Amino acid sequence: MDKNIKMTVAYDGSAYHGWAKQRDTVSVQQTLEEALAALFEKKVNVCGASRTDAGVHALGQTANMVVDTPIPLENIKRAVNNILPADICITDIEEVPLDFDPIGSPVKKHYRYTIYTGTGKPVFSWRTLWHYPRPLDTAKMAEAGKLMEGTKDYKSFASAKDYRTDSIRTIFQCSVKAEGEFVIIDVVGRRFMYNMVRNMVGTLVEVGRGRWKPEKIQEIFAARDRRAAGQLAPPNGLCLMKIYY
Amino acid sequence: MDKNIKMTVAYDGSAYHGWAKQRDTVSVQQTLEEALAALFEKKVNVCGASRTDAGVHALGQTANMVVDTPIPLENIKRAVNNILPADICITDIEEVPLDFDPIGSPVKKHYRYTIYTGTGKPVFSWRTLWHYPRPLDTAKMAEAGKLMEGTKDYKSFASAKDYRTDSIRTIFQCSVKAEGEFVIIDVVGRRFMYNMVRNMVGTLVEVGRGRWKPEKIQEIFAARDRRAAGQLAPPNGLCLMKIYY
Repeated sequence: MDKNIKMTVAYDGSAYHGWAKQRDTVSVQQTLEEALAALFEKKVNVCGASRTDAGVHALGQTANMVVDTPIPLENIKRAVNNILPADICITDIEEVPLDFDPIGSPVKKHYRYTIYTGTGKPVFSWRTLWHYPRPLDTAKMAEAGKLMEGTKDYKSFASAKDYRTDSIRTIFQCSVKAEGEFVIIDVVGRRFMYNMVRNMVGTLVEVGRGRWKPEKIQEIFAARDRRAAGQLAPPNGLCLMKIYY
Repeated sequence: MDKNIKMTVAYDGSAYHGWAKQRDTVSVQQTLEEALAALFEKKVNVCGASRTDAGVHALGQTANMVVDTPIPLENIKRAVNNILPADICITDIEEVPLDFDPIGSPVKKHYRYTIYTGTGKPVFSWRTLWHYPRPLDTAKMAEAGKLMEGTKDYKSFASAKDYRTDSIRTIFQCSVKAEGEFVIIDVVGRRFMYNMVRNMVGTLVEVGRGRWKPEKIQEIFAARDRRAAGQLAPPNGLCLMKIYY
């Protein structure tokens, strides 16, 4: 009998062309499907909650598959982790009701962006942060982050590639804190548009380096134009932390 | 007038086929020479103290170059670091006497090997450690490490590829400590043979997992045969920490 199996997946995205399967590139989804196919000896479709971009990481990507298998879930997890490369791991596995849908069911998603402001090149950790070797005013960034919270029109923070007409979104939290030479930005929202978190981070950095005052954020929202916001922050600082159901 | 310039170089070796230049592969040495050539607009030869293997890292590789340049050293460092990829960095630069030779002059070298014994796959740090997901008895390993110190014949720990006839070496320190789920092995010696540290680590792991008693180390030394020692530990756990002059 078919089981709906929910998996939490962690990965270092630096070697992958994002989560979603695409022709001629290596994706996390495809790599996971191949590992599952090797175990089950048949094609398995995996559906992920978030299409993370090339170079973006995850601690808590959530995916499901519907399979008819007698293998205990913990054994599936262990076997697939042994097949998967070192930079992808199923951290959690559980059976869920057949109507559970990873894309439609999330209540909220938590993304974290990490900036390193030290001057030394972080040769061992550059894959998982944005190296911005200049001081950032995190108090001002936190003020600006507050102004990014709420239910409003995030069109200025959507990629021009995002053709969805509805750009109203809810951001529950956009907090900024300094931890030594690191700046940690936590963004929690209901749903996101393409590049939205990275555009928010790029805008916060403009505030942090003093080019814009925090109040500028209101102007950017009002503009409803991608060109009003800051630069797109690089993918490597971004990590999908957790999806809440 | 020619200057002898000493550089301390840090790198994540996972994307490189080792330090030393080789035909048809990308090495750290070649990448550094290309960055320097781009700055000086002429070919520059860089000589490194240690030929680290593919996948081995360094915090304190030491290299020199002899160049006639009016550019202040700090400016060379900054400019070259901007040209170099994110995983290689000159951390220190200084002028030294013309007779300074990075290969011949070292007093001692410090290598560190890191093992992770946790069961979870370390998706973000697998490049810089050996994931060995079973408990290791570090007290026994430390005992065995002590027996690896001294001035003696390390032939059993030399790669079969090492054709040097003299296998007498001095190891000042071979210490093992547990830090949570990590095992840290520090090896300090005067000179090393090919694969020597990784063969020592592989042997210590055989002791740690209970296959051999610490006293077995004396037998291994007496055998003067690579086959008497443990397996070769993978390169990613190894880091050249510092070279003392």
